[in-house]
Amino acid sequence: MPITTREVQLAARPHGVPTPDDFRTVELQRPDPAPGEVVVQNLAMSVDPYMRGRMNAGPSYAPAWEIGETMQGGAVGRVTASRSDRVPEGALVLSNAAWRDVAVLADSAVSVLPEADDVPVTWHLGVLGMPGLTAWAGLMRLADFRAGDDVFVSGAAGAVGSLVGQFARLSGAGSVVGSAGTPEKVRWLTDELGFTAAFDYHDGPVADLLAAAVPGGIDVFFDNVGGDHLEAALGAFREQGRAALCGAISGYNAVEPPPGPRNMFLVVGKRLSLRGFIVGDHADLRPQFRERVTGWLRSGELTARETVREGLDAAVPAFLDLLGGANTGKMVVTL
Amino acid sequence: MPITTREVQLAARPHGVPTPDDFRTVELQRPDPAPGEVVVQNLAMSVDPYMRGRMNAGPSYAPAWEIGETMQGGAVGRVTASRSDRVPEGALVLSNAAWRDVAVLADSAVSVLPEADDVPVTWHLGVLGMPGLTAWAGLMRLADFRAGDDVFVSGAAGAVGSLVGQFARLSGAGSVVGSAGTPEKVRWLTDELGFTAAFDYHDGPVADLLAAAVPGGIDVFFDNVGGDHLEAALGAFREQGRAALCGAISGYNAVEPPPGPRNMFLVVGKRLSLRGFIVGDHADLRPQFRERVTGWLRSGELTARETVREGLDAAVPAFLDLLGGANTGKMVVTL
Repeated sequence: MPITTREVQLAARPHGVPTPDDFRTVELQRPDPAPGEVVVQNLAMSVDPYMRGRMNAGPSYAPAWEIGETMQGGAVGRVTASRSDRVPEGALVLSNAAWRDVAVLADSAVSVLPEADDVPVTWHLGVLGMPGLTAWAGLMRLADFRAGDDVFVSGAAGAVGSLVGQFARLSGAGSVVGSAGTPEKVRWLTDELGFTAAFDYHDGPVADLLAAAVPGGIDVFFDNVGGDHLEAALGAFREQGRAALCGAISGYNAVEPPPGPRNMFLVVGKRLSLRGFIVGDHADLRPQFRERVTGWLRSGELTARETVREGLDAAVPAFLDLLGGANTGKMVVTL
Repeated sequence: MPITTREVQLAARPHGVPTPDDFRTVELQRPDPAPGEVVVQNLAMSVDPYMRGRMNAGPSYAPAWEIGETMQGGAVGRVTASRSDRVPEGALVLSNAAWRDVAVLADSAVSVLPEADDVPVTWHLGVLGMPGLTAWAGLMRLADFRAGDDVFVSGAAGAVGSLVGQFARLSGAGSVVGSAGTPEKVRWLTDELGFTAAFDYHDGPVADLLAAAVPGGIDVFFDNVGGDHLEAALGAFREQGRAALCGAISGYNAVEPPPGPRNMFLVVGKRLSLRGFIVGDHADLRPQFRERVTGWLRSGELTARETVREGLDAAVPAFLDLLGGANTGKMVVTL
């Protein structure tokens, strides 16, 4: 008996800001599972900034999505039927089969997740998942964080940024400064997450706002935004400063490349290190990351806020709102 | 009996391209050496691109020169009188007391150099000195060079660049590509130094010239130029590419900051590493560097070309010509 599922497909490659017309939702019949396959009823899916890159032709962080094919991304689901020896019916699993209600997958394409009453399933898409490990790897490995460092995080109210700032605080940072796009987010960073300072990047040149927030300069920069945030950080760096470049959302919808930082010469004089990365290269850090972060979550020292939308039809609006900065913390869609 | 010396001083801070009026040459009386001091008759002095930064107010790689004071830089000289237990009369020494004929210095301010018939004294200012160690440290440590890497060097006919390319070739690079500013330099790189390819950056957009020279892309970039060269390298990098950022001579005389690279987002997607450095942080590499480079010089595998000017009055024109790209290899002034 074939399996009926609704799936969201890429309908067109956007030029600039994506619109709902760039997507279409279809109802499909998928065949019953073959030996070694499982049927997964998705419970929640992730929308992430990097997905914007996959809408374009040509490689980005990950291969381009094809027009007319169902899109992909992190999803948590329950196995409702299994022809696998390894993944039993009833298991909670993580897969890359987002943007659909039901998926039929090889058992090698899913990871069985531990279940705990105090761990919401959506955390596997956020604080305990890809965004969490991204924050950890970028701060600890790429930026070589050391206790006492003064840290600047751009896009600090996002899924990754909000964790970077808290990881830094909990690991002995000097000061932790974040940028965000609304006064509410700025207040959340300082009042709830324990950032030392934060600013709304609409309030003036980022370089000026950053200098006012940390007059003594910074040692570490974790960049989710690019553009003027990167230029400001280069100016604010002390000698031997270290940047983990994680994303550049300021340019994701740009039709023309945004201007580059005019002060790259400071990289030489200040002996700076700028390192781009993608989380997939740093899976070896996962055990250390999970142990530390689970401890902080259980002790209540770490806040894992989510912006939750409901239903597959909410996924495209959620993604478009994410690119517009509507989320605070991790944006997820429950299915 | 006081010591008479001629010295070149900073007369004014240039706005843009320096002119001879920004310097003045004076005759001074210096007191006889005190206990622990030596008198050094300079034999040769260095002019280097980094000196342009020291003409400006505010810190650059090194502290700004003061107006009305004698400038500094690498110099090799002979001790003509000594009141030091450590540095005898007759010793060949390296000091930071360039831009003058005679210097009276604390013995702690000079390093005694080995003498060998087959080592011209000027090599201590070039291939065996600061530019040589800069090339070595940048390539081997900052860019983490590995045999098989395809390497791009900007400003490849300069003191540092010409060594970077040769060090890479002698260490097993795949291809070595250099940029330079004249057809003669380009020919020298390929015909004499063994570069795989080279181009004159006046011949078109650097990105196009680089892509034509290494269609498969590069693993390592050693940058002496900045600006469009850096942008081109970011475009040409393969994944996990590594850049050592040593200088940005394209901007040294700029009144307005030059445009930044518009493709910094590639640092994330390609997981690139960009590291600025100054040679003083890497003195621990000196023994390894000297051993390897001396061997290559003795075997004739390494070419250490110099552009030599004569006399203190030639020092300012030599420096201005250096900033204009008149040198091939290391520019030195014999005294």
